[in-house]
Amino acid sequence: MSENESGDIIRIIFLGTSAGVPTKDRNVTSILVLRRGEYIFFDFGEGTQRQVFTIGLGFRKRIKIFVSHMHGDHILGLPGLLQTLSLFKRTAPLEIYGPPQLKQFIELTTEMMNVELSFPIHFHTVYDGAEFHFRDYYVKAVRNMHWGISFSYMLKEYDRPGTFNVDLASSLGIPKEYWGPLSRGEDITYNGKTYKSSDFFIPPPIKGRKIVFSGDTMPFDGMVELARDADVLIHEATYTTSYYERSLETQHTTARDAAEIARKSNVKILVLTHFSARYGDVEELIEEAREVFPSTFIANDLDYVDIPYIKPKKK
Amino acid sequence: MSENESGDIIRIIFLGTSAGVPTKDRNVTSILVLRRGEYIFFDFGEGTQRQVFTIGLGFRKRIKIFVSHMHGDHILGLPGLLQTLSLFKRTAPLEIYGPPQLKQFIELTTEMMNVELSFPIHFHTVYDGAEFHFRDYYVKAVRNMHWGISFSYMLKEYDRPGTFNVDLASSLGIPKEYWGPLSRGEDITYNGKTYKSSDFFIPPPIKGRKIVFSGDTMPFDGMVELARDADVLIHEATYTTSYYERSLETQHTTARDAAEIARKSNVKILVLTHFSARYGDVEELIEEAREVFPSTFIANDLDYVDIPYIKPKKK
Repeated sequence: MSENESGDIIRIIFLGTSAGVPTKDRNVTSILVLRRGEYIFFDFGEGTQRQVFTIGLGFRKRIKIFVSHMHGDHILGLPGLLQTLSLFKRTAPLEIYGPPQLKQFIELTTEMMNVELSFPIHFHTVYDGAEFHFRDYYVKAVRNMHWGISFSYMLKEYDRPGTFNVDLASSLGIPKEYWGPLSRGEDITYNGKTYKSSDFFIPPPIKGRKIVFSGDTMPFDGMVELARDADVLIHEATYTTSYYERSLETQHTTARDAAEIARKSNVKILVLTHFSARYGDVEELIEEAREVFPSTFIANDLDYVDIPYIKPKKK
Repeated sequence: MSENESGDIIRIIFLGTSAGVPTKDRNVTSILVLRRGEYIFFDFGEGTQRQVFTIGLGFRKRIKIFVSHMHGDHILGLPGLLQTLSLFKRTAPLEIYGPPQLKQFIELTTEMMNVELSFPIHFHTVYDGAEFHFRDYYVKAVRNMHWGISFSYMLKEYDRPGTFNVDLASSLGIPKEYWGPLSRGEDITYNGKTYKSSDFFIPPPIKGRKIVFSGDTMPFDGMVELARDADVLIHEATYTTSYYERSLETQHTTARDAAEIARKSNVKILVLTHFSARYGDVEELIEEAREVFPSTFIANDLDYVDIPYIKPKKK
């Protein structure tokens, strides 16, 4: 898949869908969100870089990595990635977001492997309720209910005021190089005259897309809140209900409980991932989830989900 | 492959054959030697446990891991393995042999990932010339010429004095339960009489099998010595001769130089591995090696080489 194909689609690629231990068919956790030329990873388990190469992608300039928690199956691909990017002589900074211990983990493993990083790492410590704001979207972290310090993440595009009024900009004689800033909400000055961005939009407003990733967690009320009306809720479903006790002991969620959260939070679709290696066949998981929430899908390795950017129809 | 199939064959499985960075087709370095129900790994790069599952094996009780050096592509599978074996509730000790820094690497990563090990790790520090002796074979380490502290390894079975003389043991009325110890070189006492093991062998003596693994290194004379008459020399061949300068800069070996070593050390076969990702097609590597040493083979991921145990013919 080339990136250009995706246009303004957000593509979510499931690079690993197994809990704890990799299997022949499923690698451990990583989710890659491709959005406008940027790579946004959620977790980076062992073997993730190879999964990226397997689907024919490489590593691009703009990369952000959000880490849910410190268990090996969610972080052990990072030291190898740093070695690889240095072998590739990357110079652009790498943005990493995660629990406080992650910084030390990266520093110590890099030092012990004697990797001379060819690029700076910008490490951002995540805390409960943290929001990281970028040009046209933000990512919010909520502490969830798993061992130690562990987070769920929401990626949300900013709402847009409407469709950019090309006809107006054109009829006013504003050169095309100003259209970008104007359409991104910036007021501009041209030929001594100031134009307000907000005057260049045709209603109705367009809601930004929203993706939520549970990380590893027991079911908890905050997740319903975080996932409210999401386009895609990616939720762990380590077990079926027949292993309910075990799901509590290990602080994980059953497929049925994940579906319950999807139902309560009114998401468009639910994608289950992070399956215990005991489930060779995942039919059982999807069946119990669909009884509660019919729009449930199972993530298999290298599957992807596209979220189109839907423009309102022109009159 | 089930383990029983192999009988007294030594099977060498190439779990990863790429240098530095994994590719779609090649994982990073690990070699698994299956010998008499034991798993002996040389290096354990990122993604190695998944390769083991891919060929239908699991992790058995008797595991030894020898690590050549601290670069990420040779060690980054270890922390995940320790997490996995603990999830599997392993209790048998795990024997790990490597450079001094490896112990700290394992301790710190395990601690940071909050893994509670369910089994003890016996860590053995490797030094130049170190020999580790086991019941019927030993492993010798020689410091090679690569960054930092880096080793090549030899696995050598002890020579056997000859074929065990079943007829003699039987005619002397020695019960079968003593035949094992006698055939392993132990003297026994039965019915008040002592029998010397060495009296129970029919010449000619049988040479133990010998496998040598270069690890990452520039060509060096000690390797010729270490590999002398080996059944299999596994040598890195990161580059072709057209990248000779680069091979020196990065302290690696060209395919031609690996073949030169194989020729000088009179090995039976040479298997090349650890290829730079620039070689999509490895034909070039094998061609230049075979000009020097015709019995050269290329290791692709999950390929294996069997070394049979050849008994002298009965008269």
